[in-house]
Parts: sequence; C-alpha cells; structure tokens
Amino acid sequence: MKALFLEGDRARVRDQPEPRPEPGHAIVRVRLAGVCNTDLELVKGYMGFRGVLGHEFVGRVEDAPDAWRGRRVVGEINFACGRCETCARGLARHCPSRTVMGIHGADGALAEFVRVPLANLHAVPDDVPDERAVFTEPLAAAFEILEQVSVAAGTRCLVLGDGKLGLLAAQVLQGAGARPCVVGHHERKLAILARRGIETVLERDWRPESFPLVVEATGSARGFAAAVAATQPRGTLVLKSTVAEHSDVDLAPLVIHEIQVVGSRCGPFAPALRALERGDVDVASLLTERVPLARADEALERAAQPDALKVLVEATS
Amino acid sequence: MKALFLEGDRARVRDQPEPRPEPGHAIVRVRLAGVCNTDLELVKGYMGFRGVLGHEFVGRVEDAPDAWRGRRVVGEINFACGRCETCARGLARHCPSRTVMGIHGADGALAEFVRVPLANLHAVPDDVPDERAVFTEPLAAAFEILEQVSVAAGTRCLVLGDGKLGLLAAQVLQGAGARPCVVGHHERKLAILARRGIETVLERDWRPESFPLVVEATGSARGFAAAVAATQPRGTLVLKSTVAEHSDVDLAPLVIHEIQVVGSRCGPFAPALRALERGDVDVASLLTERVPLARADEALERAAQPDALKVLVEATS
Repeated sequence: MKALFLEGDRARVRDQPEPRPEPGHAIVRVRLAGVCNTDLELVKGYMGFRGVLGHEFVGRVEDAPDAWRGRRVVGEINFACGRCETCARGLARHCPSRTVMGIHGADGALAEFVRVPLANLHAVPDDVPDERAVFTEPLAAAFEILEQVSVAAGTRCLVLGDGKLGLLAAQVLQGAGARPCVVGHHERKLAILARRGIETVLERDWRPESFPLVVEATGSARGFAAAVAATQPRGTLVLKSTVAEHSDVDLAPLVIHEIQVVGSRCGPFAPALRALERGDVDVASLLTERVPLARADEALERAAQPDALKVLVEATS
Repeated sequence: MKALFLEGDRARVRDQPEPRPEPGHAIVRVRLAGVCNTDLELVKGYMGFRGVLGHEFVGRVEDAPDAWRGRRVVGEINFACGRCETCARGLARHCPSRTVMGIHGADGALAEFVRVPLANLHAVPDDVPDERAVFTEPLAAAFEILEQVSVAAGTRCLVLGDGKLGLLAAQVLQGAGARPCVVGHHERKLAILARRGIETVLERDWRPESFPLVVEATGSARGFAAAVAATQPRGTLVLKSTVAEHSDVDLAPLVIHEIQVVGSRCGPFAPALRALERGDVDVASLLTERVPLARADEALERAAQPDALKVLVEATS
C-alpha cells in the first residue's frame, strides 16, 4: 500500500506492507486523513518517530469482528495496554506503555490502511460526512480543555493562536458558555470565528490585558511567555502546544502570580462527535486543500504554510 | 537606624533614616528577622530591588493606634491597596499596585524599625517565642500549598529540596495527612524530617519514581525539569522556587502528561501561627546561626552556604 513514511527528517510516500490483522484490532481502510501540526513537529524531530505518519482519520473497517466490519469509524490515537494501574484509573490516554498512532511506536493513518485497537474505534453517525468526521481527533483535543478546567458561564477567556486548534478551542469554549477572545495573525482565519460571534483581534492591534483563563495554542515555544503575561493572578493557563524546541522560560511569574498551568493533550471523542453531529462547531471553514495520498508529502508542505489550516489527504482514489 | 541596604548587587549595613509613621501603618521595632533565599536572589538582581532587605520578622509595635501599640507582632509582606478589584476578590496578596516588604517598593525588616500596614499585622500568641514566631512568614508560604491544592489523606507526595521551604512544606504536608518523601542533598537537613517520621532520600541514592503531587522547592531553575519528570500523568506540580535566572525548559512533557503546574508564593499567616503555637512544626531545628544586625551582610553570606538553613538577625541589642 501507499503510505507517508517518516525516517529521520524526511517524510515521503512509499510502498509499505499492509498492516496485518491482530486479535482485538481492526484494519481500517482510510478514506480521509488530516495533517496536524504535530506531524510537522515530528518531521523536525519531536518524539524521534520513525514510521507511517498520521493520527487524524476517518475510514471504513475492512477487517474486524462482525460488530465492526464495514462501519465508518474514527479512532482514538493512544493505544493503551488496558491492564496497568494507569489504565485502571481511567487514564488510558496516559498508559505508560502505550503506543500512539503515527506519533510513537505505531504506524499512522496517512496510508491506505491503518491498524487500530477495537477499543479505540468510534462509529461515525451517518449524517456526519467524512469531511467533518476527520476533525474528530483535533476537536476532541479542544474538548479536553473542558475535561480539565471548569469554565463558568460568561467567563472571559483568551485564546492565543488562530491555527486549527485555536479555532476549535474558541468554538468549544463558546459552546460551553464562555466568552473567548482570540488573538491571531491571520485575518482570514479569525474571520471564521467572527462570523460565529466570537471576539477576535489581530495580534498587531492587540492591547495586552489579562484574563482568568488563557489557552495557549500558538504552536510555538514563544507563545508560552505571552500566555503567562496574559494570565491573571491565580488564573489558569491551558497549554496545548507541543513543540520540539526547548524554550528559554522565566518561571518566576508563575510563582509570583500563582498561575496554574494545565498541560492539555488528547481529548474525549464522544463530545466531539456529538458536536459534529449537531453542527455546533464550524469545521468546514477550516479546510484548506485536499491532496491525494500519492502526494501526501506535498500535503505536509502545504500544511506548513502560514495561511494554511487543515490539509486533508484522500487515501482512497 | 542601622539597616541592611541593597543597592545594585551589593547589600551592606548602613545608617538609614527611621521609617516615619503614616496613617494606617505601624512602626515596628524589629527583634528578630530571618534571611530568606529570596534575599539572596534579590542580591543577584531578582526584581531589581533597591532598599532595605528583609521580609521575615517578629517585633514589637512602637508606634500605632492603641489597639496595636506594644504588641508583639509578625507581618504579612504584601502591602495591598485594599481598594482595587483584585483586593475585592480577596486576593490582596496579588494586588497589582502592591508593594512588597523588602522585595518591591517597600523597605524591609533587616533593620531596627520597619513600617507595616496595620492590616498586615498579626499578634503573636504569648507562648510562641520570637525564635519560632520569626518563622511565620516562610511557614505561611508552606501552608499556601494547602490553600491551592487539595491533598487527600494518605497521598504520597514528593518534596524536592531540603532547604528551609522544603523542610517546612514536608512538615505541613505531613500535618495534612499526606505521606511526603523528601529528596535532598544534605544528611543533616534531612535528619530533621526523619526524626519526625518523614521519609527522606539523599539525592544520590534516589531512584526516580513518579508521584501524584510534587513540590518543587529546590530554589534552583534546574529543579523544574526534575520535578516535571517526577510528576505522574495528570499529576500536580507545586512550584515554590522563585529564581532570578531564566531556564531552558522543555514544556512538551507538561502537555504530553497533562501535568498541572501550580505556582505558589506567600501564604496565610493564621494557620502558620496556629501550627507554631501547637508545636506542630519543628522550626527550632532549622536555626543555623544568630547574627547581630551590625553584621547582617555576613548573615547573607552565611545563609548562602550550602549547609545553612535559617540565619536570624538580631535587630535589637
């Protein structure tokens, strides 16, 4: 099968053996897969990953027990052992011996087929088309904020970054009754939110103020300092960016202002699928381009351009 | 009066005008003052402070309204405006226009006299001698952990650092029913805790494991990475060290393991005074040396030595 394979700092489409069936796993024929900033970070060396990239997908189950065969699915990306203490505590996404699809120890979905544990599958409701379903994983990451932080109705909060995650997080916060203000660099990206009644500011026009809740979604190591500066004393800073670079950080303001920093990663698929089914979140506007799998390396390049939002790869021709 | 004055990177004892009475303030004749690591950081340039150092003291009120005159007191160090929104929210310690005794915009207590707002004074119970009362401020900083983090009885937690704050934090956590393990460099300092039944490990013997709750009290920028590594997924890291240096920090583990970092600074005096009154916390063993005010510059030097714990300055001869 064709797959986008990362080796060292080079990702290229190559022929790859199809994943073999395994007990407790499904083989999914990928229909659409999304390119995430994490993929770009992986190419830069984050996690030292070697293998097939891709952790956002929608596809149809090709090989699995009857209950799953033929169903249209999305899949959670952390492949947990299911037996350890962490899994028993309900933190399977943090299982210490997990592999992570397309990120750590498991081949990903920028391929014709991907193998996924049955426990990780979620059936996609019929009225959620592929083009929306493929956003389940990143949208779940935005919903993770609500799992970790209690957001009182009417809370004014700041989202730093108008990338995909920033746009999704702002919509999820709005859906939870908060009043997000989103600071970004791109008029066209911010306009997606403005159409939904969300306050947006171009960074060059932003007069810094401070908020009880700040979501750092710039995808850059530098974003952290700006986020700290914008967090009120005793406020909460949700940190969403995973970046390969270290950064020179002044930790003193965290202590002085008693700021709480909440690292936030993958989230729950169920509320994300519900939001997609209800049309609560505009994901269609985030689509930048569709690229066939044979040119998936170009999809990475396209996704790295500043104006890009979601680049989708069509795995089936 | 004599006072330990910081100017640039030099702190020296010099003659200084006595603080003048002001409405709403007391003039306190200092009896004992403590040297804190923050003082050493201030000398290195932290906060850019210029003025009389010292923010831990016990003394007797010399000039104030009748209700306070003659009383033995300790004093909270954040001098708030009492009128702003932050003060109204009960966060006077974070008042944006506050000055901070001996740290920011207000002269400190390494002097014969110090001026303190009446609102900041706490009377010292008669059966708490000066030598214990002078620990109220740092002990309050340890109690701040309990204000910010809920500590379930029996929680195994890690305290990194066997400096003053580490020793106080471990005792406060033990008092709250937690089971702290303290990692440090100094057998003699750890022995203070071991005598109280607290688990201690020399750093060179420590086999890293991870904990749901970690308190970073190393006083060094490098301690942060070790603390992150020792925090369980979804665990809490309480950050107590304020250091002047920036540090090269890898923020990715916070996101990957969804760690919550809680910056923690000054704390409530009331529970600290209660603990001192009851003898719940051993502070006597933390005393390294008493130095007269005339040699307060030597007190700073002594406090900077690795074997030192609390160096006290005797302000009244």
